[in-house]
Amino acid sequence: MKTVKESEIRRQEILVAARELFIKKGYEQTSVNDILKIVDIAKGTFYYYFASKSEVLDAIVLDIVEEGARRAESILIDKSIPLLNRIMMAIMAQVPEFEGTDEIKVEIHKVENTKLERLYLREMLKRMTQILQKPITEGIELGIFHIEYPTESIESILLLGHMMFDCDVFHWKVEDYPMKIKAFLFNVEKLLGTKEGELDVFLKMFGQMK
Amino acid sequence: MKTVKESEIRRQEILVAARELFIKKGYEQTSVNDILKIVDIAKGTFYYYFASKSEVLDAIVLDIVEEGARRAESILIDKSIPLLNRIMMAIMAQVPEFEGTDEIKVEIHKVENTKLERLYLREMLKRMTQILQKPITEGIELGIFHIEYPTESIESILLLGHMMFDCDVFHWKVEDYPMKIKAFLFNVEKLLGTKEGELDVFLKMFGQMK
Repeated sequence: MKTVKESEIRRQEILVAARELFIKKGYEQTSVNDILKIVDIAKGTFYYYFASKSEVLDAIVLDIVEEGARRAESILIDKSIPLLNRIMMAIMAQVPEFEGTDEIKVEIHKVENTKLERLYLREMLKRMTQILQKPITEGIELGIFHIEYPTESIESILLLGHMMFDCDVFHWKVEDYPMKIKAFLFNVEKLLGTKEGELDVFLKMFGQMK
Repeated sequence: MKTVKESEIRRQEILVAARELFIKKGYEQTSVNDILKIVDIAKGTFYYYFASKSEVLDAIVLDIVEEGARRAESILIDKSIPLLNRIMMAIMAQVPEFEGTDEIKVEIHKVENTKLERLYLREMLKRMTQILQKPITEGIELGIFHIEYPTESIESILLLGHMMFDCDVFHWKVEDYPMKIKAFLFNVEKLLGTKEGELDVFLKMFGQMK
C-alpha cells in the first residue's frame, strides 16, 4: 500500500507533466494518454487522482494561486521594507506572471471558461486576504491605516486590481493607463485610510512596468 | 424601400418576440424559426438584422443595460431626494431585476458564458459611469464629495457592487451579508470622500432587501 507521501508525490508528478504538456502542446491538444506516457503510469492510476483532464487544469490553477501566495509571503516577511510598500509589493508579486505558462493563461482567460476564471479569482481572493490580514492589522495598530473593515478593504483592493489590470474589464486604451493607475492608487489610499500621497512611490514603478 | 424607422421597428419586433420566447421556452430550446413564426417574417429578413440567435441575445443584453440606465436616470432627475441618496438609489435601481426574465439571467450567468457576462458588465459600467458623471460633479462642487478622480471612483463603486452582490464572487454566507453591506457602504463613503456615516441610511434599506 502506498503511503500518503508517495501518493502526494505521484499526484505532483502528474501535475508537473501535465503543466509542461499544456504549455508545449496546448491544453486542447494534450490527451490524458500523453500525460500517462511521461509519468509512466496506468490509466487507472491517473483516474485515481483526477476525474478528468479538466480537473488537472483546476489543480494547476490552484497551484498557481499558491505560488503567487508564496511570492507574496516572502516579500511580507522582509522587515527592511516599510509596511505599506511591503503590502503593495506583495499584491503585485502575487499576480501570476505565468512565466512560460502562456497556454494556461490563455485557457484561464478563454471566453468560454468562466468556471476556471472564477475559480482562480475566488481562490486568489481567499488566499491573499488571509495572507494580508496580519500586515494590515499591524498597519492599523501602528496608525498607518485607518479602517474599520480590514478584511473587506483588502478584498476590495484585490478585486479592483484584478478586474481592472489583469482582466482588462474596461478595455482601457494604452494611453489611459498612467491616469488609471494614478486613480487606482488614490483609491487604494482611501480604502486603506492612509495619508494622501503615501503610494506616490508606486507611480514610477507602475510607469516602468507598462 | 424601408425607411430607417420601419427598419428599427422590425428589429425591435424581433427582439421583443425573441425575449418572450427565451423566457417562456428557454434560450437553448428556441430556434430562429420560432422567432420567425411570431414576427411573421422570412428567414432572410431575420438574417438582415442579426447574424445569429446569439447575436439576438447580445442585443437583448444591451437593451437590459439601457433599461437599467433609464431607471437610474429617472431617479437622478428627482431633485426632492438629497444628491447622495439619489446617486445610491440610481445605482441600486440600475441592477436588472430581470423580472420574468429568469431565462436570460441564467443565460448571462451560465458558467460557459463569459462573453455575455463581460458584455453586460462592460456596457453597464460604460453607461452608468456616463450617467453618474453629472451628479458626481455636482456633489464635488457642493462640497459633498472630495475626490480627485470622479470617473474612476464611480467605476470602482459600480465594479465592486456588481462583483460582490450581483455576481456573488466571494460566495459569502447569508449570515455574513449584513456586515459585508456595512463594510461596502463604508468603503463607498471612502471612495466618494463623503463624511463618515453619510450612507448609514442605506443600511436599513439593504437590510430589508435581503
